[in-house]
Amino acid sequence: MHRLTRDHIVYSLDKAHPPVLTIDPGETVCLETYDARTGTIQSDADLLDHPHPKGANPATGPIFVRGAAPGDSLAVTILKIDLADRGFLAIKKGVGLLAHRADRYATKMIAIRDGIAHFNDRIRFPVRPMIGVIGTAPAGAGLHTGHPGPHGGNMDNNEIKVGARVHLPVAVPGALLGIGDVHASMGDGEISMIGFEICAEVTARVDLLRGETIPRPWIETADGRWVTTGDDPDPEAAMRIACDEMVTLLQRRFGLSFEDAYMLVTARGDLTICQACQPGSFPVTTRVSFDPTCVT
Amino acid sequence: MHRLTRDHIVYSLDKAHPPVLTIDPGETVCLETYDARTGTIQSDADLLDHPHPKGANPATGPIFVRGAAPGDSLAVTILKIDLADRGFLAIKKGVGLLAHRADRYATKMIAIRDGIAHFNDRIRFPVRPMIGVIGTAPAGAGLHTGHPGPHGGNMDNNEIKVGARVHLPVAVPGALLGIGDVHASMGDGEISMIGFEICAEVTARVDLLRGETIPRPWIETADGRWVTTGDDPDPEAAMRIACDEMVTLLQRRFGLSFEDAYMLVTARGDLTICQACQPGSFPVTTRVSFDPTCVT
Repeated sequence: MHRLTRDHIVYSLDKAHPPVLTIDPGETVCLETYDARTGTIQSDADLLDHPHPKGANPATGPIFVRGAAPGDSLAVTILKIDLADRGFLAIKKGVGLLAHRADRYATKMIAIRDGIAHFNDRIRFPVRPMIGVIGTAPAGAGLHTGHPGPHGGNMDNNEIKVGARVHLPVAVPGALLGIGDVHASMGDGEISMIGFEICAEVTARVDLLRGETIPRPWIETADGRWVTTGDDPDPEAAMRIACDEMVTLLQRRFGLSFEDAYMLVTARGDLTICQACQPGSFPVTTRVSFDPTCVT
Repeated sequence: MHRLTRDHIVYSLDKAHPPVLTIDPGETVCLETYDARTGTIQSDADLLDHPHPKGANPATGPIFVRGAAPGDSLAVTILKIDLADRGFLAIKKGVGLLAHRADRYATKMIAIRDGIAHFNDRIRFPVRPMIGVIGTAPAGAGLHTGHPGPHGGNMDNNEIKVGARVHLPVAVPGALLGIGDVHASMGDGEISMIGFEICAEVTARVDLLRGETIPRPWIETADGRWVTTGDDPDPEAAMRIACDEMVTLLQRRFGLSFEDAYMLVTARGDLTICQACQPGSFPVTTRVSFDPTCVT
């Protein structure tokens, strides 16, 4: 099994970054990931009142997958997410869906013991680890790891957790995979902009699907559902993309008419907000979940 | 137990409608509900290419709850939803989140046997019954049963199902409760605008919470979660309302600071789209789900 330490991080998914690891398709990697502020938040006094010098959300990588070529896709199966023993939640003044009420900065370091997060003496909850950033390098200009897009990136999608098989487009030779921004817990919507940010180790198997061209990421879940994704600064457009992807996936996989697929997704597909911390100015991310076992 | 047949329907929640039934707080009612097109769709040839003469989504009622007064709230526990043995899905030309691809009308009658919907020879799925319309009469002008609002109405919220306890504001004497628009299945988002529409019988217990003033509906689920709701033609505003409601609910119930409640909802509250069939021109409905057992 390959291993990458968190010394090897990037702040963009970019074909210009030289790979720090080369693997064969089907191999497993263990990646140390940094929290979204690269370890700079260590106490409740460390407020998010200044930009990180290199930007937020570093991804560990990039990983070159031998033989991966534009038009292929990767299928990254998340085998394990080991969390550090503490992370943080935070509020940024004037930021998030409730920006109008967020009149000051606040940071809270949170310890995790035996899978339980200790928010304070009164509040404890089980963690639900997920991966915020996973993606490949786009064909054109690099994209900051804070941003989502057709290459993946900062999707903040709660379905990207242990057991998930994440399909990612390959746009450049070797794919140049990066993974980071693990959350110990993040509600759908990530409404304040800052999830329960934490360092972690992610173990994943990377398969190559030759010739399987996909326009953007989608996910097979451990319980057999399919999940399509969308992103756009306009929430309506972000929702439309994920829905269109699911309807198109059902048409292609099952040979359904548009009308049948549209009716089916209306009746059985669940549209959810992944991240909506700054609609309008920052891409909203969305997903649609559908259980395909209803079609034979 | 009281019973109301589906002869007693209204197309608006309106204090001007005379009550068709009066009950005491704590009593149980069984309401026959019509499908969203009042039974006018009976074959695949019945297209939704004309407006229903009285509008869509009739609610059975209104029910006068003795003693209910403005400033109180109702808590309606859904005990049972019995579905008719068939309903319909449909596409309206140029309507829904995928309006750009919906180039023709289509209707599909769907039979239900032993809880399984038979979409066609290849596609079958279990039903998941929920209530689309539930609300009280607003203090001011009546609102069409197609519309959601602070009074409830057409929330299309998948959490309003058997076991849920739905809290509704009381704005007029007697509350004037109406329930209708059951769906045999509706994906979150109801993306084409037409869920799996069906006639049903809804059995519910109606409790009165005297002096418990609430700004808009919220729900206690059978598994102990709290669910707040939002609606607005602007998706961002609709999301903001449901999030603000949840943060405020946690502050009020647990005495949390705004910052702690905002962090908690970010970490653990799941924001979901209930209905987004025509963002911008028609209210989007949203919800936030939170498990309060993490607070002691």
